[in-house]
Amino acid sequence: MGKTRSAPTLNDVAKAAGVSTATVSRCLNSPERVVESTRKRVMQAVESLGYTPNFAARVMAANRSFTIGAIIPTMDNAIFARGLQEFQDQLRESGYTLLVSSSAYDPEVEREQIRTLVARGADGLLLIGYARDAEIYNYLEQHQIPSLVAWSYDPRVQRPSVGFSNTAAMGELARKVILTGHRQIAMISGKTKGNDRAQSRVEGVRLAMTENSLDPDTLTLIETTYEIEKGAEALRKLMNLSPRPTVVICGNDVLAAGALREARNLGIQVPEQLSITGFDDIELAEIVSPSLTTVHVPHREMGRKAAQELVEMVEGRSEGRSVCIDTRMVVRHSLAGPPDLP
Amino acid sequence: MGKTRSAPTLNDVAKAAGVSTATVSRCLNSPERVVESTRKRVMQAVESLGYTPNFAARVMAANRSFTIGAIIPTMDNAIFARGLQEFQDQLRESGYTLLVSSSAYDPEVEREQIRTLVARGADGLLLIGYARDAEIYNYLEQHQIPSLVAWSYDPRVQRPSVGFSNTAAMGELARKVILTGHRQIAMISGKTKGNDRAQSRVEGVRLAMTENSLDPDTLTLIETTYEIEKGAEALRKLMNLSPRPTVVICGNDVLAAGALREARNLGIQVPEQLSITGFDDIELAEIVSPSLTTVHVPHREMGRKAAQELVEMVEGRSEGRSVCIDTRMVVRHSLAGPPDLP
Repeated sequence: MGKTRSAPTLNDVAKAAGVSTATVSRCLNSPERVVESTRKRVMQAVESLGYTPNFAARVMAANRSFTIGAIIPTMDNAIFARGLQEFQDQLRESGYTLLVSSSAYDPEVEREQIRTLVARGADGLLLIGYARDAEIYNYLEQHQIPSLVAWSYDPRVQRPSVGFSNTAAMGELARKVILTGHRQIAMISGKTKGNDRAQSRVEGVRLAMTENSLDPDTLTLIETTYEIEKGAEALRKLMNLSPRPTVVICGNDVLAAGALREARNLGIQVPEQLSITGFDDIELAEIVSPSLTTVHVPHREMGRKAAQELVEMVEGRSEGRSVCIDTRMVVRHSLAGPPDLP
Repeated sequence: MGKTRSAPTLNDVAKAAGVSTATVSRCLNSPERVVESTRKRVMQAVESLGYTPNFAARVMAANRSFTIGAIIPTMDNAIFARGLQEFQDQLRESGYTLLVSSSAYDPEVEREQIRTLVARGADGLLLIGYARDAEIYNYLEQHQIPSLVAWSYDPRVQRPSVGFSNTAAMGELARKVILTGHRQIAMISGKTKGNDRAQSRVEGVRLAMTENSLDPDTLTLIETTYEIEKGAEALRKLMNLSPRPTVVICGNDVLAAGALREARNLGIQVPEQLSITGFDDIELAEIVSPSLTTVHVPHREMGRKAAQELVEMVEGRSEGRSVCIDTRMVVRHSLAGPPDLP
């Protein structure tokens, strides 16, 4: 009984040539982008193994730049970094290069960047959140550029997305806060204008209040930009209120780290005198003291699945599906019951 | 005496149309990239003010994509984020869009990304550090793509860069460590292979030791990737040595944060029983407890100056100059004298 000799795969060629599969597909599809010594090695491996790339795939490939664009709101903190690195690594496995642009949460800048990436020949785009002018989505449709939304998931929206329900995730945390006994609730949120993630997180807190017979209008809300310094500033304002809130729910871990730092500066014990919570579970959340009770967002998983789906869309194998990623609450040390009344 | 009526500027047009100067230059140079309503508003302002863009500048502009590429080693932490955001903001002032790629510290990936950005029409490139194959620099020269190095500055290297001397910056900190009384010195460094910043920081420590009559070969050196978890791991190893180092100099703040966390887990008091230092002065450095003695790198200033220089190069007004940015030591609470001998 002899071994069945199966057709050589891309992987076999990559191994024989000592390069990545991404490099092999590049050699086959855009040889001008591969340095000559590598190209020779790969083509020798292709020949000696008798590798034949799928013909239909090659015809389709001919029109592609093997470049994917992503536009994120900011590079200035770790929120998007981790998911994006995984997104890129996964794209690279499929032979695509990622180009990233950052809009600084400005819709006009985002629009320019989308046009730049399309003008530069991007095969597909990753966008953060749903909220943008219909005109932009129309533009992408006219240019036949597949786009995928990440970081948001809402089954009511008819648009492919790989994300999570910000409302449900923050709602779970807020219910825990209320169950712990808090009634004087404040929230430091990112700016909600044009940011559906921030809007949904505020909505999650309000829904949890309503469910527990608290008037959602009693929520003290400060909106600010996602910076440590801004979280600190907002906390200072909240501590000047009377009565003081007993818990500050923060729109993300960066704001919570700032709030925590300011509480320390003001000599307020967390969580004995004041509870503070975060969102995202970036590395910071575990390092600060006390460590943050927060919502864990599986950024890497989201990045990986978004890359897989977007490649399927770009290569015409999917019309665009939506994937809901599970988040979970992480209980650490920054949340406790409210202090006893004086 | 009447007012002199000077020629209207780009700025005047922008104000009249209620848009950014970047949008005005885009309207003039790549009108297809601007949404119609905005374009109309801008062209009305151009007409009513009688604005005439400099003709020579427009001819040169015709060959440009107004896109700049930057390739950074990683998006996965804050080290490059801040400088890059400022780099982008400054580019935007001049009408350029930034596209970023991350090489994951892999020279083969970086090479692919450089070729992709050139193929996508980038007018110029920002690269981190000097260390890469001559072949890449030749390729860029052949394609007449100006490139600027950032994060490194070495007057011996004939290549335009906006950066700082990693050797001098780390040397200053190491001298302070030695003056404080430490003799058992360990260092947790980033991987030095292909990373001139990491190499120079190790060199800075060794030079400071030599200057102070300490044998640089007695430096205990662990190389690892720039991750919190890896900093923690490395500290664990160092604490198993006998004699134990009395100070751990870390190649950056991320490694230092990990080392600090692990020291806490092991019940080792910092700085009473062990001193730990960082590098970069990212926000983390001030938030961890005790706060980190580190080297402050003015990332925003570096980003801004790099953008200004690269635009000058792309627009043919500079052959490429080098700028040395000043760093400074920041003394906080993680460094003290060595513990008394038993």
